[in-house]
Amino acid sequence: MTETAIPTDVESAVLEACRRAKLASRALATATTTVKNDALHAMADALVAQGARIVEANAKDLERGRANGMSPGLLDRLALDEGRIATIAEALRYVATLPDPVGEVKRGSTLPNGIRLIQKAVPMGVVGMIYEARPNVTVDAAGLSLKSGNAAVLRGGSAAASSNEVIVEVLQDALEGVGLPRDAVQSIDAYGREGARVLMNARGLVDVLVPRGGRDLIQTVVRESTVPAIETGEGNCHVYLDASAPLDRAAAIVLNSKTHRVGVCNAAETLLVHKDAADYLPVILEQLHEAGVTIHADDAAADLAPANVPTVAATEEDWATEYLSLDLAVKVVDSMDEAIAHIARYSTGHTEAIVTNDIDAAQHFVAHIDSAAVMVNASTRFTDGGEFGLGAEIGISTQKLHARGPMGLGELTTTTWVAYGEGHIRG
Amino acid sequence: MTETAIPTDVESAVLEACRRAKLASRALATATTTVKNDALHAMADALVAQGARIVEANAKDLERGRANGMSPGLLDRLALDEGRIATIAEALRYVATLPDPVGEVKRGSTLPNGIRLIQKAVPMGVVGMIYEARPNVTVDAAGLSLKSGNAAVLRGGSAAASSNEVIVEVLQDALEGVGLPRDAVQSIDAYGREGARVLMNARGLVDVLVPRGGRDLIQTVVRESTVPAIETGEGNCHVYLDASAPLDRAAAIVLNSKTHRVGVCNAAETLLVHKDAADYLPVILEQLHEAGVTIHADDAAADLAPANVPTVAATEEDWATEYLSLDLAVKVVDSMDEAIAHIARYSTGHTEAIVTNDIDAAQHFVAHIDSAAVMVNASTRFTDGGEFGLGAEIGISTQKLHARGPMGLGELTTTTWVAYGEGHIRG
Repeated sequence: MTETAIPTDVESAVLEACRRAKLASRALATATTTVKNDALHAMADALVAQGARIVEANAKDLERGRANGMSPGLLDRLALDEGRIATIAEALRYVATLPDPVGEVKRGSTLPNGIRLIQKAVPMGVVGMIYEARPNVTVDAAGLSLKSGNAAVLRGGSAAASSNEVIVEVLQDALEGVGLPRDAVQSIDAYGREGARVLMNARGLVDVLVPRGGRDLIQTVVRESTVPAIETGEGNCHVYLDASAPLDRAAAIVLNSKTHRVGVCNAAETLLVHKDAADYLPVILEQLHEAGVTIHADDAAADLAPANVPTVAATEEDWATEYLSLDLAVKVVDSMDEAIAHIARYSTGHTEAIVTNDIDAAQHFVAHIDSAAVMVNASTRFTDGGEFGLGAEIGISTQKLHARGPMGLGELTTTTWVAYGEGHIRG
Repeated sequence: MTETAIPTDVESAVLEACRRAKLASRALATATTTVKNDALHAMADALVAQGARIVEANAKDLERGRANGMSPGLLDRLALDEGRIATIAEALRYVATLPDPVGEVKRGSTLPNGIRLIQKAVPMGVVGMIYEARPNVTVDAAGLSLKSGNAAVLRGGSAAASSNEVIVEVLQDALEGVGLPRDAVQSIDAYGREGARVLMNARGLVDVLVPRGGRDLIQTVVRESTVPAIETGEGNCHVYLDASAPLDRAAAIVLNSKTHRVGVCNAAETLLVHKDAADYLPVILEQLHEAGVTIHADDAAADLAPANVPTVAATEEDWATEYLSLDLAVKVVDSMDEAIAHIARYSTGHTEAIVTNDIDAAQHFVAHIDSAAVMVNASTRFTDGGEFGLGAEIGISTQKLHARGPMGLGELTTTTWVAYGEGHIRG
């Protein structure tokens, strides 16, 4: 390990923030839905009312970002104006309209001995969020945590520290206004990367860590964290065209999966084509080319590309890459089982799609794919909390523990068993 | 970090075992319930048929254990005879009678766009188990993993290595006999502690780690593992006597929670008594004393002990200790909220009980306790997979992610979303 020691003052400050969040979480756990919704509206009102102050703080972040040579894309994600603040506030009001996941009875029965047993949803307690310099995520994370009855300890990118500081202060004032503890939402941006490392190891104080951001951020959290973490958002998604796929449907699903939005985790990155469907490839590759897609093809696919469609030779690295760009790896396979084996090897377990008109083939694919979502004759782009009807989405889990696929508010809860006896003892 | 480097050959051997388990897991994931139950019966039959061979291997472990000065208690847990093997085999037959958790549809709907969406239970894939020198756990872990459609990579204590080696071979032969892959159950005991460390970091190959054993083992796994792990089995459980508790009920629940079985995680370790119920203490302390319990009392409780009941002064350490013995810490509190705060500080989040006849008091306690199980007027001893009707129990989770409280077969599954469209693309 090449890590340097964490300064004692950073460690004690972050642990103290987590301890205060833990205390606050007990008040949130018993807050009624009405109070939580009032808080969400108060937070939205306060953000709009304090818009000018937030924009002013954001200007400092932008100035620092420009001085540090931040890319235009990142600067855009960082930038706030009163219009964007209104949109962010609206998202809080939307969260207020969603069902409260807390208190839902999951299972229950009267045991043979007469004990009445229920298993019900309760908040996690303290949710830690580690994310990149996007001030809208600060508000989003605070709102989703609050609605699910959790306190939130937030670590945004230092590049958004000024914005986040003012935003969190505004949210805390709003919480206080409805009688909830200020400590329910806290930022530890002031403690930098070392503060984030303390957060990742505050096991017992922080109940779950949700990293949101790029691959490096997520892998760091997964590797270094002793707090249970949920791996989200890496998507090396595949579309497989079976021998029986009708061309028009196949082309539409491939195009939509790849080009509808390229920078998102549910976009397709590799196309696998059964050799018996290979005669579709000229048409599909041409359409992809027209849409601006660069084709990384294996030999068989390259041979099928029309003369006007340039391809580059796919390497081992291409199969493993989540491009997040107008690039697509394309491979011809001899059988569905070859496609399944390729996916097992390279997929990040997010979403895979099959296009087929053969009911047994669809069933075989679904049974043998080990991913969070499998699409049969639908675009990979549908793996999404909103599309799935979960309301707000915290992220898309690509791990198997606790939550898999799009995570809604319910995934920020755990359960407790409550047993009611009349003096029952075990014999 | 003071860890030494792991020898390359150990690393590659263990990773290779995990890779083979991953391959085998795909066959198990699609195995029917009938085949899995046939395998469980074949495994049971084979253990009984090969009993003499297993006992012979076990004798070597016992001999080595005696030579190494292993305690009589540990030697007893390690020892096998044909009678114990028959009991272990019977447990496999019982697992065959339990419902198959794989394939259960958890949620489903037709989305507004017509996509038919279901979320269904699927196996985790590869389950890693790290446990102590108890050969019965080898069989138990193999059986539970198999029934839930998972391959198992087992690391038992080296003290049971000879027994485990033969047992795993017998189980593998049985699996092969019903057409399932041998690699579905593997032992990595031969690779010692270093092998265990490789297993804990085989993220991507191993889907979940379930440690079973004492506090040190579990904390090591939680701290060192990058594979998602489930923390199980630490139980510093509390019984709280409210002011309204009737004496006979209170005494029965305290006695049962403490003395019914002392070495288990759901035994009570601390008794908290409301000052208005303190006049019950003389009777209850006398009964505990008669049952052989050593009372670690705070000043107020010590003052209430009858002359013939000796007490020792409780220290800070007592409140935090899971005795697992005939010891009980006893404290008088001024209010229920003081009891709740004490529990929040010292509990491991396993089980807490309240004895009360006041419905509002019961509700307040349930709402403010953050543990896997809360008992109202019932012994802490009821937190148990069998008692809760879950069938077999893999362990009792004291963490909040994925599973909390007694874990049945269902907790060894994850879910996948399957969406059926008719050429749906996202607009």
